[in-house]
Amino acid sequence: MMEEVKVVLYGVGAVGELIARFLLEKQGVKIVGAVDVAEDKVGKDLGVVLGLNKKLGIIVSKDAASALSNVGADVVIHTTTSYLRETYPQIVSIVKRRANVISTCEELSYPYYSEPKLAEKLDALAKKHGVTILGTGINPGFLMDTLVITLTAVCQKIEKIEVMRVLNAATRRLSFQKKIGVGLTVEEFKEKIACKQITGHVGLEQSIAMIADALSWKLDVIKAEAVQPVIANKTVENNLVKVEAGKVSGLRQTVRGLIEGREIIRLDFQAYIDAKEEYDAITIQGVPTVKQKIQPCIHGDMGTVAIVVNSIPKVLKAPAGLLTMKDLPVPSAALGDLRNHVSTLKQSDSK
Amino acid sequence: MMEEVKVVLYGVGAVGELIARFLLEKQGVKIVGAVDVAEDKVGKDLGVVLGLNKKLGIIVSKDAASALSNVGADVVIHTTTSYLRETYPQIVSIVKRRANVISTCEELSYPYYSEPKLAEKLDALAKKHGVTILGTGINPGFLMDTLVITLTAVCQKIEKIEVMRVLNAATRRLSFQKKIGVGLTVEEFKEKIACKQITGHVGLEQSIAMIADALSWKLDVIKAEAVQPVIANKTVENNLVKVEAGKVSGLRQTVRGLIEGREIIRLDFQAYIDAKEEYDAITIQGVPTVKQKIQPCIHGDMGTVAIVVNSIPKVLKAPAGLLTMKDLPVPSAALGDLRNHVSTLKQSDSK
Repeated sequence: MMEEVKVVLYGVGAVGELIARFLLEKQGVKIVGAVDVAEDKVGKDLGVVLGLNKKLGIIVSKDAASALSNVGADVVIHTTTSYLRETYPQIVSIVKRRANVISTCEELSYPYYSEPKLAEKLDALAKKHGVTILGTGINPGFLMDTLVITLTAVCQKIEKIEVMRVLNAATRRLSFQKKIGVGLTVEEFKEKIACKQITGHVGLEQSIAMIADALSWKLDVIKAEAVQPVIANKTVENNLVKVEAGKVSGLRQTVRGLIEGREIIRLDFQAYIDAKEEYDAITIQGVPTVKQKIQPCIHGDMGTVAIVVNSIPKVLKAPAGLLTMKDLPVPSAALGDLRNHVSTLKQSDSK
Repeated sequence: MMEEVKVVLYGVGAVGELIARFLLEKQGVKIVGAVDVAEDKVGKDLGVVLGLNKKLGIIVSKDAASALSNVGADVVIHTTTSYLRETYPQIVSIVKRRANVISTCEELSYPYYSEPKLAEKLDALAKKHGVTILGTGINPGFLMDTLVITLTAVCQKIEKIEVMRVLNAATRRLSFQKKIGVGLTVEEFKEKIACKQITGHVGLEQSIAMIADALSWKLDVIKAEAVQPVIANKTVENNLVKVEAGKVSGLRQTVRGLIEGREIIRLDFQAYIDAKEEYDAITIQGVPTVKQKIQPCIHGDMGTVAIVVNSIPKVLKAPAGLLTMKDLPVPSAALGDLRNHVSTLKQSDSK
């Protein structure tokens, strides 16, 4: 049997920590390095950072170059920030060390939309070094794009696509709640959104662009509506925050893809405390019409951890270059020993 | 722009006819030949066979070899029968003419289960001739396998998978209704099932085997329960048949995948006249649990026509050999000109 798959974690924040815990449980894979900039993590053993009762012999390093040196990483799981402009040099440094990259950077899920030049450079660099770069996660990366694309396969014609994700923010971590403005006054919310102090959900434009690309739809424009606060109509409370009536309990974002003024893709994302009905719904108006619903919605962090780790075998076997989820084989859970999934994937021999 | 994709139809029965009509509407693709054994079709122009008001200049041939000669087919759409033992020589004859094959032969959707030796031979032959063979359709091929596999991608762990397809047979063609025993007495139904005069739905075992393969689950056994008739409790009627109370209005089939006696995959297929609620439901018990429902269910023939034609670009770009849906990139609708979808697919260059 092949050697264990060697992984370096680039980013040991909220999501990186969850991925680390999951990888430690899995067979056929080994964490061989960890990178983070947080002062309370740098220099500590990864086991200590994760709050485990044991040391793992992996010291969290501030310096990516040294963490990646001489460890022979097969893949680097990159979980730092949402914007490709910021993550670009980090990803370049990984690719130059000839490791494959799986990143939760939201813009990287479909980088051709907001950063086509950086995407082109990454693609060339990855091909030069013989590695694959993939941006993924539950959203963007799956629920509002890859799964939508998959369902279009049953359609002969399509008029319009509508996707809704509604989640109860009370079930999510504090940093997510902050990102969506929970507890702010409406005025504070609008200010912080305007000056980008809070971002809301990043990735809806990328999801629309990926769907359009898969369908060969040439959109004239992808239009993001102003982010709307959801207002608590009574005081709501969870173990992390208390939101008084009249304050912001979360947000609603709508992004639309248009051709000649006609809306043909609409993504609607809603995340707020105490959302009564949580779901992921896809409606494809076409021949035939498809009405699909996942209820309750998939938990963001749990799903992202799964998708990232489940992508490892496909990325290891993929052609070199910058890929998106739609370019890879049908996604699937890499249950049990990760090596079994690497060895059973079909080779990508050309015809 | 590349030339139009040239298609030969091998089988111009109920599904083949629907595919032909859809292809005739589509840009970037051209029907260049047609094969069928039905005496009322052989020797006639395809346009006449389809009931169109015009001739297409394509004569339906009984002889596949001659229909495939000198037409330069890129892909043959093969829609004859459900069992690989019967379709094997037909597929061999296509592959030897160096055309790719997309077939609705149910066993071919995952041929390694019932016909591993034939599968091995087809794979070797396809590689020798540099073409791809794919078995697909709405079911097997998508609703109870590929879509299930796709949804597992959000899971870290999986305990059990349950899939249900419930459809109102009144919306389906007569040949389908006959296949599921509509209008028979219970005794007739049991006799005809026992002597395989009617088959019910073919492909549940293949779907389970494909799911298990994608997840690296080693099943001890795939167990088909006895096919159960659904009995009409009042007289039901549609434009094709009348079923008196007490007679068979359709059937229910359950197939289960077991490991050490524990059921970990269950597929439940129900098709009967007047089914009140039509749906395709997938439940994955795991971390996280996924509860998904498509309602109403996807119409079988409409979906099969879509999946078959939508698979053309992926098959043209796929590596040579016998593939299944899980080996191909994420499926999607090939809207508009088919050539756009061929040219934008990522090349399968190896690393």
